[in-house]
This record gives sequence, C-alpha cells and structure tokens, in this order.
Amino acid sequence: MFEAKLQSFTETADGTKGAARVAALRQGFAALGIVGILVPRADEHQGEYVPPSDDRLAWLTGFTGSAGLAIVLAETAALLVDGRYTVQAAAQSDTKMFAQVPIHEVSPAAWLNQHLKPKSVLGYDPALHTPGEIDRLATALKVSGTTLKPVSNPIDAIWSDRPAPPNGKIVLHPAALAGEPAAKKIARVQKSLAKDKADGLIVSDPHALAWLFNIRGADVQYTPLPLGYAYVPATGKPTIFIAATKVPTAVSKALAKVADFAAPRALEAAVRAAAKDRKIRLDSASAGMRLKMWIEDAGGTADVGADPIALMKAAKNPAEQQGMRDAHLRDGAAMARFLCWFDKTATKGKLTEIDAVAALETFRREAGIKNLSFPSISGANAHAALPHYRVSESSNAPIEAGVFLIDSGGQYECGTTDITRTIAVGKPSKEIRDRYTRVLKGMIAISRAVFPKGVSGAQLDSFARTALWSAGLDFDHGTGHGVGCYLSVHEGPQRISKLGTTPLEPGMVLSNEPGYYKEGAYGIRIENLVLVQPVEIPGAERTMYGFETLTFAPIDTRLIDTKLLTDDEIVWFNTYHKQVRAKLKPLLDKSTAAWLADVTKSI
Amino acid sequence: MFEAKLQSFTETADGTKGAARVAALRQGFAALGIVGILVPRADEHQGEYVPPSDDRLAWLTGFTGSAGLAIVLAETAALLVDGRYTVQAAAQSDTKMFAQVPIHEVSPAAWLNQHLKPKSVLGYDPALHTPGEIDRLATALKVSGTTLKPVSNPIDAIWSDRPAPPNGKIVLHPAALAGEPAAKKIARVQKSLAKDKADGLIVSDPHALAWLFNIRGADVQYTPLPLGYAYVPATGKPTIFIAATKVPTAVSKALAKVADFAAPRALEAAVRAAAKDRKIRLDSASAGMRLKMWIEDAGGTADVGADPIALMKAAKNPAEQQGMRDAHLRDGAAMARFLCWFDKTATKGKLTEIDAVAALETFRREAGIKNLSFPSISGANAHAALPHYRVSESSNAPIEAGVFLIDSGGQYECGTTDITRTIAVGKPSKEIRDRYTRVLKGMIAISRAVFPKGVSGAQLDSFARTALWSAGLDFDHGTGHGVGCYLSVHEGPQRISKLGTTPLEPGMVLSNEPGYYKEGAYGIRIENLVLVQPVEIPGAERTMYGFETLTFAPIDTRLIDTKLLTDDEIVWFNTYHKQVRAKLKPLLDKSTAAWLADVTKSI
Repeated sequence: MFEAKLQSFTETADGTKGAARVAALRQGFAALGIVGILVPRADEHQGEYVPPSDDRLAWLTGFTGSAGLAIVLAETAALLVDGRYTVQAAAQSDTKMFAQVPIHEVSPAAWLNQHLKPKSVLGYDPALHTPGEIDRLATALKVSGTTLKPVSNPIDAIWSDRPAPPNGKIVLHPAALAGEPAAKKIARVQKSLAKDKADGLIVSDPHALAWLFNIRGADVQYTPLPLGYAYVPATGKPTIFIAATKVPTAVSKALAKVADFAAPRALEAAVRAAAKDRKIRLDSASAGMRLKMWIEDAGGTADVGADPIALMKAAKNPAEQQGMRDAHLRDGAAMARFLCWFDKTATKGKLTEIDAVAALETFRREAGIKNLSFPSISGANAHAALPHYRVSESSNAPIEAGVFLIDSGGQYECGTTDITRTIAVGKPSKEIRDRYTRVLKGMIAISRAVFPKGVSGAQLDSFARTALWSAGLDFDHGTGHGVGCYLSVHEGPQRISKLGTTPLEPGMVLSNEPGYYKEGAYGIRIENLVLVQPVEIPGAERTMYGFETLTFAPIDTRLIDTKLLTDDEIVWFNTYHKQVRAKLKPLLDKSTAAWLADVTKSI
Repeated sequence: MFEAKLQSFTETADGTKGAARVAALRQGFAALGIVGILVPRADEHQGEYVPPSDDRLAWLTGFTGSAGLAIVLAETAALLVDGRYTVQAAAQSDTKMFAQVPIHEVSPAAWLNQHLKPKSVLGYDPALHTPGEIDRLATALKVSGTTLKPVSNPIDAIWSDRPAPPNGKIVLHPAALAGEPAAKKIARVQKSLAKDKADGLIVSDPHALAWLFNIRGADVQYTPLPLGYAYVPATGKPTIFIAATKVPTAVSKALAKVADFAAPRALEAAVRAAAKDRKIRLDSASAGMRLKMWIEDAGGTADVGADPIALMKAAKNPAEQQGMRDAHLRDGAAMARFLCWFDKTATKGKLTEIDAVAALETFRREAGIKNLSFPSISGANAHAALPHYRVSESSNAPIEAGVFLIDSGGQYECGTTDITRTIAVGKPSKEIRDRYTRVLKGMIAISRAVFPKGVSGAQLDSFARTALWSAGLDFDHGTGHGVGCYLSVHEGPQRISKLGTTPLEPGMVLSNEPGYYKEGAYGIRIENLVLVQPVEIPGAERTMYGFETLTFAPIDTRLIDTKLLTDDEIVWFNTYHKQVRAKLKPLLDKSTAAWLADVTKSI
C-alpha cells in the first residue's frame, strides 16, 4: 500500500498537563498586575499555520485545532472554539480545568463580562493580537469596566520545554517563476505608500514578505513561508528582519542590492527610529498591537489599514499565471492516476479514508510537489458531510457504498493547487444524483460567469447556489477563497462569498467550490480553481472579466442527472472533459489514459 | 389637455441673493467662535423631503436638489453636490459666490482640509447632522487639526423671511389598514428595548412615528408624514412631541390610552430627565447629534444604532399587504388608462414630457390617490438616459420616435405604488429591442428568485444584471429600494443592491427596477414592486422565500426580442400579462379594456 509522508493521522498534543500549567500561569498574574490572560491560537503574524514554538494554546490546553482562544482567570478558565471544533476541544482538553465555550454563541467579550469583577485589569500579549481586535474587545468590555493591559507573555515565562523556533532555510524564488524582480515590486509598493502619504510600511505578513523579495522559506507546515518582518520606507532601501541562521550567504548576497538584513530583535529599535513624526502603515490583518504601540510611543502615527502588497500579490503576473497552469497539469495527472486507482480498488471494499490519502499523496510526490498545500480532507459518506473533516487514526472509516469526497492540493515550485472531487462508490441514489447535479450546476455557473470590472466575489456567490435554492437547499460556506502562487492556498483579499467585497481583477486566482451536506449521511463538493481574465465581447461598453479554469481532472459523470442540466451546461461540461483528456493524456501512462478517455466521454 | 396639480415644473428658489446672505451669515461667526459653518440640505429628521421652513440650503444658495452641502468660511464658500446635480447647482446658485465642488470627487473633509488654516474651529448645527456623520468628519479633519463646534444655527438668526413651519393636520390611520393597534406595536418595541437592555428609545424618524402610533400627517411633499418625535420608555407610556396645532382633538383623544402629547420645545427637558444613568437608543439614520449631546450631558448613555421600528415597519402585516395589493390594482388601472391614451395620442407627435405627466397624474387623481408618491420622471430618448431626470418647463421635450420612459407612483390610503414603464414611440431599433429584452430578463430573474431565509438583497442584485453583463453592459444604480405602506416610497433597510445586507423577510416590499442607459441617446427601465413571501418547496431543508409581484400593468411587447427569452421567461411573461388582464379588466372602461386585451396577448 501507499504511505503518507507529508501528513500525520495522530494528534500529539497532551491535555493532561492543563491543570498544572494553568496553576503555574496564575502565579505570574500578581507581578503583572492582571487578573487573567488571553491565550489565543495566533502567533505574532496571525498565520494559519503556527510553528510548535508558538502554539501556546496547544501547549496550555492540549487543543490542536486551527482556531481558538483560552482565557485564564484566577478562579476559572475557559476554552472558546467555534462549531467545527467543539467535539475535538472537549476530547483534547481537560474539561474540568477549561469550561468549554462555543465562541459562535458566547463571544469572548460576553464571557469576560460575565466572569470578571467590575473594573478588572485583563492581560494580553500585544504581539499576538491585532489593534482592531484589541479595539473591538476594549469597546465590548466597557460594560464591565474592564481594562486591557499589554503584558510580557506569562506563558513564555513558564514554558520550560518550549521547542526551538523554526529555522527553515530561505531560498530564492526563481526569476522565471516570480515574473517580476524584487526591485520592481519594492518600487510599486513605495509608489503606493507615497500616494497614501505614508512614510513607510511594516511588512508583518510572511506571505507578503515572501512575495515582495521573491523568497520562500520553510518555517511552517504546508506553506513555504519565511517567518519574519520587513520595513519598507517610502524612499530608500528596505530592511528584512529575519534570523541570520535562516539566510544562506547566496540569498543575502543576491538580495544585497534591494534589501539590508537585520536580526528580529532589532525590529523594535528600527521601528521606533523610523516612526518619530512619521506615518507608518500597518497591515490590519497581520500586524500585532505591539507594532502600533512602538510607533505611537516613538511619536509617530500608526496607519492601520490594508497592506498594499496584498492586492499586488493577489493579481498574478503572466509568469505566475503560467506557473499555476503548469502546476495544475501536473496535479491533474496525479489526480487522474488517483481517481483511476480508486475506481479499480475501491469497489473491492477494502479501502479506508487514510488509504486514499496515502495513495493520492504518493501520486503527488511522484508529480514533484514540494509539499502538500494542506492536509487532505478525505471523507466517506457521513464524514463527507463535515466540510472541515480531517481523518485521524481514530476516525478512519472504510470507504463503503455511497460517495467519497477528497479535497486536497499540492505546492509545486511554480504554483499551488486545491481540488475537490466527489466520487460514486457503487450505484448512487437518485437523491445523491439530484444534489450532485445541482452542486455541479453551481460550479458551472461560476465557471461561465462574465462580469464587469468592479464586481466583487460577493456579487457572484449566489450564482453557485441558485440550483440548490430552487430545491430548498443550500450550503453554509463561501463558494471560494483566494489562492496564492507557491504561497498559501488560502489567500486574501479576493474571495467568492457574501463577505467578499474586493473587486475581482485579472490575475486573481480563486477556488470555485460549491457543496451540499446532509448531516450524518453524505456530503458533496466539486472544486476547481479559476483565474480572473479579461473577456472580449463585441460591442461591450464595460471592461469585462471572466474565469479561466485552471484545474483539469475528471468530474464523476455517474453522479450526474443530465436531465437537470441545460444545453449550455452540457456544452460547458463536455468541452471541459475534452480539455481534461487533451491536456492530461501526454502526462499519463497508457492504462490511466485509457481509463481517462472512458470517464471523460461526452454526456 | 390634462393638468398636473400635485407637481410643479418650475423652480422657485432664488440664487441671486446668495452673496448678501453669505455676507450676513459671516457676521455671526465671531460671536460663535467659529471660522465657518456647514449648511447641509438635511433637516433635523434627515428626511428626503424638507419643508420650506427648513430648506436652509435652498434659501442660502438657490440650489433646490435633494442632496447637497454648502460650506461657508470667512473668505470662501463652496457648494458640494453629487453627479446628478452638478449642472443644476451651477445653474441655480451664484457660481462666483460658491465654488462648485463635485462631492463624489472631493469629499467635504478633503475640501475643508485644503481650505482651513490648521487648528481652526468649524461650526455646525447639532440638530442637522447625525452623530455618525460628525464622528467621521471629525476623524477626517484630524489631518488639519480642525475642531468641530456645535452652535446655534447662524442661518436661523438672519433668516428674516423664513416661512412658517408646516402645520399639517394629523389623521388616524384606519385600524383596518394599519392591521395592528398602536398598543401592540409599542409593546413590541418595548420588548425589543428590554432585550437590548436599553431604557428607552427616541423616535426621531417621522416615518417610524407615523407607523408606531398609526397616524399620518401632511408636513412634507409626497409622504404623509407628521414631523415630530416620540420618546418610548422601556416600560410605561410613550410621549409624542408634536405641535398641538397639528393634533385634532379626536386624534389626541383616540391616542390618549397609548401616548401622552407634549410640545416639541419640551423634548430637550424630557430627554435630559429620562437620560440620567440610563441607556437611551438613538436611531443612527435620523437622530441629530444634539440628542446625543443632551443624553450625555445629563449623565446618560446614548446607544446609537438601528431604530428597532425600522425592521418592524419594513415587514408589512397581512392588512398592509392587502392594502398594497389593492393600491396596486387601482394604480394599475390608472396606468392602463395612461398607456392606452399614450398609444393613441403619442403617435400624432404632439405630446411633450409634461403632457404625459399631467395625463398620468389626472388618471391617478381619478383613481383616488391622496398624493403622488414622488414627482414623476418623464423622459423621452436622451432624457430617459438620466435615471433621476425631472422635467421642468425649460427642459420639457417633445416625445418623438424612439422610447419614452415614465417612472411614477401614487399614495393611496391603503398603500404606496412605484412603477416604471418604457414605451416604444414608432418602430424601435434592433439595438433598443436587444437592450430592452435584457433589462426585462433581469426584471424577470428577480421576480422568479427563490432564496433561503437569511439572504439579503445584496445576494440577489446580480440576477438583475447577468443578461446585460453577457453583452458587456450594466447599469449604475441598485436594482431596488424598499417601499413603505402609505409612507415613504423610499424605505430602508431592505434593498436589492450590492450594499443591501439586511436579510429579506416576509412582508417586505421592494422595487425591482433594472435599467440600461445610453448617454445622449435613450434609456430603459422596467419596474414592478414585489413583496417577500414564504415559498413552499416539497423536500425543502431551508425556510424559503420568494417574491409576489404587486404591480400589474402591461409591459410593452413591441420592444421585446423574444428570441432572447428562455421558455421559462416566456411562461413568466405570458402568465404575468394574463394576470394583468384579469385583474384590471373589472376596473376599466370598455375601450381601455379592449386595448389592454390586445397589448397583453401572449408572445
């Protein structure tokens, strides 16, 4: 059988030490002048993946989910998690120590206003919370007269077995793949700062750091990030703040013309020196409150807003677009090998969810990935109904008659992929075919959308839902998220969701992934990535855009009820499958190619 | 010919006195300790229609548009208006006295930061600006160190020929039409206040005042509003603050059980007395800054947010729904008479835009309107391309070959209407038929939409545009606004627009009015009102809603290219026309009925 090397199915955190660690933590409160402390899951970059050395929440509570907040007060403590994680949090943490609080029902402020005595002083680590987060919390805590106090992190003071910080070596991202030299990118950023009358920008988002200097790192899982900062003055040479041990001489030499290097511990002094009487832009999404405090303390103005790099990075240049296309062909071939293998093996009834993950990962490794872009979601039937399901050794289910859903992606040096396919196992029911076809109609509607410049993803999201709505059905997630190019598979600000108000611009990459979930029974999702492109329409009065599909892999026709499709939808579908055949065949062995020709026949 | 009695085609304001009035105004600055004053178009209720006694902007500048702001400083003055009004403002005001500033390009704050000396003190009348408006302006003026100072309005001090305030008599809105007694409405509001832990609500929106107490007034044009306030304590009896001369004894007697009456001048003392140590809700959309100042000055908390009445009023009860249906039948018959007359008369080539307005108004008066719901928009060809065109004696154009657009509505005691039809004059061009059909497809898409509870108008707006988008076309206004029931034809918070994030709920009435505008050539808009209703779908997993169409009047088939319509759209259209025939025939004379039968034949 196949083996997964890039993802694990066991949970390593230990919840049994929560009581002792909370007790130790509380002993530090008096010296800090606080009655309690916030312990968020976030690190100082607000990243999706947090290195073990910064996963204070997991160390304290045992809970390893990707979002959550512990609050430790003198007499009580709570673990607040959202609906995805309520079961996992209760299983991993000491529920006698930590009251389990559903954060979607009881906000941190509501819980605090209930449990704090009037006029309390609550501590927080200003590296780990954004100014916006602290502002909102401070406003909501006015009811109980609570004050928030920035403190040196009391967990760090007692974390004796703390892992070393990550030390991933930085590599230069090849010029042919990056498509634009760092010097030109820096000039664009500086032009944008001048336009906004800002004197400088602190780059606190490692994705922005990687993009700006055309570098990649290896500090966290699944995203090739160098954890660090940069300061970009409106004029002059930027400074990159990153541990010297992570920067090979060849890299620092290559970047010497466009940036200076400094140690992370030099950041504070540099920010303070740069800030006096100046206006410094901070990224509202990733900058910690401490950056704002340093700037204001030095007599400067912290201009908290959008990092101008985010929009520049979101619109891929022609080299990146080509890289994304290339990555998707390699990934499509791996998917075809997987789907072919699955079809021939699953019917024998011996596969588990982990077997499928291991097989797909193996095909992707053979396609030359640098890494996965996230741990695969591999769910049979009822597990497929959980959009964020992650298989573990304890949950691992056999793949039995019904549907199997697999959502996965790879990091290729030239681009990042993310694809979901839902596959029939045995003969699908009429209901499943109906639901699957409605999801497919939504996916096709987004694929075929044409819209004027200025339109946001919020204005397109409903197109993915109308076929479900007309049957009284819906799904409870956005239709798509932005995707980076050999960067994060979850990238903003572009998204297709009722919350996605950023206008779509050519070069932006998004997922197109409507779904349908029947709790306890089955789940369906079909996902392609799409690239925003100009569209020429004769007589058009507006600048028009549409989507180029990047993902090429067969879509299971056994689950389609063709009577529900319009002629236009059938044309789109058959054209898509024809492209899948033509593009993947050169990359496949004969047996897989023959299977592909069969499953992509016109409907 | 017909005569218009409810709308005027002449502008009465006088711009020649601007210089003298500005000079007099400036003499008051020193005593107030200010370097200048803001003169907004708004009155103290932020209403769409402002009584002459409160139209300070028109008195000072001569400009009579529905939105604008004058700023008078010691050395300079400016009139800021949006794109609809740049031509009108320049024509009506003294352009030597007032710099003409396009507000969509230069914000008031940007203009002020340019023209004020650092650390200036700028005056404003706290009755005429909302707290949110003042907060935003104060933040934006930090750059120049400008402080905003609330002052007694210096225009009022010099306005010697000021008209008397309106004195419209209040009437009780019949119980059968209101559908819910005031006592029950008050109880609902008080329950909502208790839930929000607010001690009281200041009702500053006259629409809310009218709805809450089931009264109507006659203080402004086109909307039966009683200008006034109410204070609703969380428990106990509300007080209505309104001039005693407006309240007939029968009205005060009828309301005696549910409310006390007090003079408007008693409002301040009452608010101050109610506020101490209490939390008072203010409507962020209509409450003036002075209300917040009174509350805070008295030691209370001003809770600026949504007026809970807005959402209650938006969801019409069964009696109001039936009233809206009845109003639309009477209005549809008037429209049919008008369209029939137009068809028979316009071809003779002697009609003008004003003739059409006068005829339609006459048919509506004969249908028993209390008033129009707004001045009709009556535009031939190039005038139709201006979505907010208002015909005047100087602009009045002959109705010649091409298209004629008329957007109009009536106030019936049982409900409010708003309808737009675009009519062929002569043989329409292929291009016009193409555009008209695409607009119609958008209108039908909204009419047929089915969506789950929780969906907002923002999530539906694009459905009105896809047929235009696919040809590279669009229109630059929202698809629909909320509509009141014998209240304002423009009612929030519900709307169909990318900005309309309020979830749609059964009973809400909205306009459905996509358009297409070709500058200098022609314009198209088709508008029906729709009512949100529950929809039963077998097997539905969500609570589903859809739209019941309220408006029944023929849609010009001569402008339709049926090849562009889908089978489903043709079925919708023919069903609609069949309903128009069936519903209006009993209300029409024989000749009009025969015409109607002809123009509503199946396509």
